[in-house]
Amino acid sequence: MRGEQELGISNSKNESPGEWYAEVVKKAEIADYSPVGGFIIVRPRGISLWESIRFHLDSWFRETGVENAYFPVLIPEKYLEREKEIIAGFDPEVAWVTHGGEEELGERLAVRPTSESIIAPFMARWVRSHRDLPLRLNQWCSVVRWEATETKPFFRTKEFLWQEGHTAHKNRDDAWAETIQRLDQYERLYREILAIPVLKGRKPEHDKFPGAETTSTVEALMPDGKSVQGGTSHYLGTTFSKAFEIGYVDENEENQLVHTTSWGLSWRAIGALIMTHSDDQGLVLPPAIAPEQIVIVPIWKGDKREEVMEYAREIQKALSEFRVQLDDRDEKNPGFKFNEWELKGVPIRIEIGPKEVENRTITLVHRPDGERHLIEIEGVEDAMRSHLEKIYEKLYQRAFDSLQENIHEVSNEVELVDKLTSQGGYAKTPWCGEEGCEETVKEKIAASIVMIPSEMEGKVQKGDLCSVCGSDAKEIVYFAKKY
Amino acid sequence: MRGEQELGISNSKNESPGEWYAEVVKKAEIADYSPVGGFIIVRPRGISLWESIRFHLDSWFRETGVENAYFPVLIPEKYLEREKEIIAGFDPEVAWVTHGGEEELGERLAVRPTSESIIAPFMARWVRSHRDLPLRLNQWCSVVRWEATETKPFFRTKEFLWQEGHTAHKNRDDAWAETIQRLDQYERLYREILAIPVLKGRKPEHDKFPGAETTSTVEALMPDGKSVQGGTSHYLGTTFSKAFEIGYVDENEENQLVHTTSWGLSWRAIGALIMTHSDDQGLVLPPAIAPEQIVIVPIWKGDKREEVMEYAREIQKALSEFRVQLDDRDEKNPGFKFNEWELKGVPIRIEIGPKEVENRTITLVHRPDGERHLIEIEGVEDAMRSHLEKIYEKLYQRAFDSLQENIHEVSNEVELVDKLTSQGGYAKTPWCGEEGCEETVKEKIAASIVMIPSEMEGKVQKGDLCSVCGSDAKEIVYFAKKY
Repeated sequence: MRGEQELGISNSKNESPGEWYAEVVKKAEIADYSPVGGFIIVRPRGISLWESIRFHLDSWFRETGVENAYFPVLIPEKYLEREKEIIAGFDPEVAWVTHGGEEELGERLAVRPTSESIIAPFMARWVRSHRDLPLRLNQWCSVVRWEATETKPFFRTKEFLWQEGHTAHKNRDDAWAETIQRLDQYERLYREILAIPVLKGRKPEHDKFPGAETTSTVEALMPDGKSVQGGTSHYLGTTFSKAFEIGYVDENEENQLVHTTSWGLSWRAIGALIMTHSDDQGLVLPPAIAPEQIVIVPIWKGDKREEVMEYAREIQKALSEFRVQLDDRDEKNPGFKFNEWELKGVPIRIEIGPKEVENRTITLVHRPDGERHLIEIEGVEDAMRSHLEKIYEKLYQRAFDSLQENIHEVSNEVELVDKLTSQGGYAKTPWCGEEGCEETVKEKIAASIVMIPSEMEGKVQKGDLCSVCGSDAKEIVYFAKKY
Repeated sequence: MRGEQELGISNSKNESPGEWYAEVVKKAEIADYSPVGGFIIVRPRGISLWESIRFHLDSWFRETGVENAYFPVLIPEKYLEREKEIIAGFDPEVAWVTHGGEEELGERLAVRPTSESIIAPFMARWVRSHRDLPLRLNQWCSVVRWEATETKPFFRTKEFLWQEGHTAHKNRDDAWAETIQRLDQYERLYREILAIPVLKGRKPEHDKFPGAETTSTVEALMPDGKSVQGGTSHYLGTTFSKAFEIGYVDENEENQLVHTTSWGLSWRAIGALIMTHSDDQGLVLPPAIAPEQIVIVPIWKGDKREEVMEYAREIQKALSEFRVQLDDRDEKNPGFKFNEWELKGVPIRIEIGPKEVENRTITLVHRPDGERHLIEIEGVEDAMRSHLEKIYEKLYQRAFDSLQENIHEVSNEVELVDKLTSQGGYAKTPWCGEEGCEETVKEKIAASIVMIPSEMEGKVQKGDLCSVCGSDAKEIVYFAKKY
């Protein structure tokens, strides 16, 4: 029992969500802390989550005309300076390389914080004619930003893995359609693969990506009541094409500027995944992303080992279309195995004992809630498919209900402050459009406008008044505390 | 014709291989030069080659027990210092990060040149018992070494993409088997995917990876007569486990040190691929790695467009199991298209004109040598499979013949110098084992011992004398000029 104790999670998700999260990440062997603050080591179970995210997104990107490329990890200071001069508000904290070997460099090089400043000049070279458009590039890489202080794996790290897409189009309409298409793909990733419903919308003017005309975002609600920005897609208009002279000759032989977009999703999605579904027993993973979807635990005493193991192997073979693991370790007892695989988040556990062998059945347990079924071996594949689907639906539904319950429509500041303080989640409210009104709320409870929904979902009505200052509202917005 | 002129390669592979290589890389849209010397931009056609290499190697690694992980891009100086103190000869030239944002760091951080120094301490944490072994980790990442002066895309760059594998085993036998298994996988990659035969062997003592007991290598012969080190796999013995205290408790409850390996293959493989097969018309790619395996070029005049296009689409559909591209651009003529797809290295071109439509045939042309066939549409898939196979065999056979013709058995220094100066390739010769004898050759003609074959393939005979000093030979070795 001592071993099991050590294996288990000692913090409670409800009572100390920060410690609980750190413990799950470590004990489920997702990640470790690097000796340098702000950096983490991602272990195989963690990287397999990222590879799955990459696999799905990358295939959707490809189907919709995106090509991968690779731009250097080090960017000359003058490139970033150029971007800073042109793009109001762009001033990232970066890691500076000043020496190569023994030698001091003539110009400092930044470890890439994002790659607009190096990609834009090359777009300018590659785009000549309308036939070169759209140009859609993406890269999977790591970036470093010297910002995070306290390390929280996947949420707050100085280095993170991400993808950054950069595209150029003939006109506003095409670029806008691109912006929304990528946002929709992020929403799809959260919904289909991570079983997390998100809110889609845009950031207020003062919180846009520097240089963007519109920053669109997917926001996910965490169980502690805070909102996570799950991915952003920016319509950059002609800001970058003016600055970097990215032009083309159109069908009528006229010179035009391209309209650009950029969009990125980072390993923060892994953080949101763990935070959303996991519990006091450890990790809970949706079937689409779980490294193992099914684990088979044979249970035997005395001389039954061989027949139980043989049957277990038969089941394993029958389920070869799934990611299935047979835990055949003799040195561990079933109780230990149950705990370990629960900790690691395997969606379905199959228990096989002498009874199951005799009746040609299996006992099947859902990870999220312990729901048990005794089923016939006949048609086990179909059964498994439907149980995995059910588990997905459970997870998604629970997250969806939680999101719905935590969108609070409020009409004045007292309500707004009260709801976000006592219950967390989102306060949906009319807003006058002045940053000052957001500042008021921010100073009081550290909540800000995380998202403005599209008009369809939150159209301001005649007579709506800003919940903070009481003047005429311009928009319906979502306030929340955020990560 | 002017456009075609610009599109074409103006340098000759035979006469100016360096300029020819640079021109092919640029015009086939594989890579561009970054503003910082030693760094390159890899364009989509280049990255797709790397992704294919990654896909194949990664799946073979997985099948043989390797798991991916991710370690930080920045490594504290004291970690590298520790490795330098312990490992004789380890002193990489690195890029140093000295500032984070505005602040000077307390300790310099290196942009990773290789990750032994950060992975080993974590292996020490994760390995406790014999049950934790073998531990096999790999990461796909970029590394920076401040060494290259003149940039040559994929061959000489300060930053390169690679994979680095790091494993720990119970004993010498297991670790040695691992070392050879990875070398064999590199050989397989070159043979099956890149259509390049390689020589397998080990480096001489004085040219091993610092800390390695054995450095094994795959060497590929380039058409200019030089040898490229295509990938290395190191048996590290207990050097790292002693230094970083990576121990385990064995089956008898005794403390033991693990034996480790590391192995890496970089984007240099792309350089070798381009250099080996391509010609004065541009890129030549083996079918397994070509982004497009087949291009269909419709040829029509006057009112034939519709029927030719319809037939072309029918063929495209019939070939959907391949990576097939229909070049339906109306604004380009067939001659232009032929040149462009030759430049880009598509293995098979299908020409479709009114004659082909009428007879329900296709004309098929092999990229490497222009071999033409007129074939029936009946069974076109099988035909295509066999033609792609034939093209692979042609490429492999040509490279194989060139390798065989350029291994020169020599028995004295005059012959050695003469062969390598006049013909290039490898001089296979007995060697006494003294570094001084290699130095003599190096000073004269800049050739060195690139590889010592396994005993089977180059066993030293009684009476064999070192070709340089004339004393008793210890080994048969391969001298060559190298990249």
